[in-house]
Amino acid sequence: MTALLATFDPRYDLKLEREIDVPVDLVWRAWTTPAHLRQWFVPKPWTIADCEIDLRPGGIFRTVMRSPEGEEHDNSGCFLDVVHHERLVFTDTLLPGFRPSAKPFFTGALLLAPLGSGTRYTAFAIHGDAETRDSHEKMGFHDGWGTVATQMVDYIKSGAL
Amino acid sequence: MTALLATFDPRYDLKLEREIDVPVDLVWRAWTTPAHLRQWFVPKPWTIADCEIDLRPGGIFRTVMRSPEGEEHDNSGCFLDVVHHERLVFTDTLLPGFRPSAKPFFTGALLLAPLGSGTRYTAFAIHGDAETRDSHEKMGFHDGWGTVATQMVDYIKSGAL
Repeated sequence: MTALLATFDPRYDLKLEREIDVPVDLVWRAWTTPAHLRQWFVPKPWTIADCEIDLRPGGIFRTVMRSPEGEEHDNSGCFLDVVHHERLVFTDTLLPGFRPSAKPFFTGALLLAPLGSGTRYTAFAIHGDAETRDSHEKMGFHDGWGTVATQMVDYIKSGAL
Repeated sequence: MTALLATFDPRYDLKLEREIDVPVDLVWRAWTTPAHLRQWFVPKPWTIADCEIDLRPGGIFRTVMRSPEGEEHDNSGCFLDVVHHERLVFTDTLLPGFRPSAKPFFTGALLLAPLGSGTRYTAFAIHGDAETRDSHEKMGFHDGWGTVATQMVDYIKSGAL
């Protein structure tokens, strides 16, 4: 059943839009395969120490980010909407099986569309209010999501996928 | 794409199980049609003053409960998983379009299965921790959800659907 598309509201949400010169199918694979996602999903020199993906609504989406000093941040949530090669919606407000989480923060939406031989790449961070949006922006949303998008493109171009 | 089924954990969750002598298709219709849902979804003499249903993941599920004195409670959320005649999962932790809500409390799951000419009717309330479970229980989960299940069966038997 087709989900209601997550929509962008500039009062509450943040957006990264890029035209990238790697094809949709490789972007999809980079985002949905733990071994690949670990190579680019956090700005270096941080690393992804662990990643779990169960690619269906209610299925786990978990990444553990590790600082160069070894400090770890566990980000656990689940997928909400999965349309092959087209969109991926996930949230940290619900754990696997749609169980409410202790630290609800945002819903993420990745939208992909073919653009010649490349991809129009759009990522939303959807929040419950303007304060959370502003706090996510101050945490470095644009730099962070921009940097990892660049890292992803470089990784795909390295031919590792 | 088939969702990961919401599962019941007795430490965190509450459950109502009934065998009822009305068929699955009418239970489904009673739950998914605003005009019908308004007739039974809150214990009388409370009433449902308004109801909105957009029956797809991310689609609105909103009910407004009104006390005999006219006090209103707005419960807004969205559906997460919709399998015709089989299951309905919804939450108040996310608003329509999967936007995080200001008052996350629980995820609800309704599971239906044919049982002769009747229905095995199972409803879960899924919480993030034991404290929320206990508070929902003290709010009268079992009485409340039991009473409305009885009201629903009576309404279906009245022939109004």
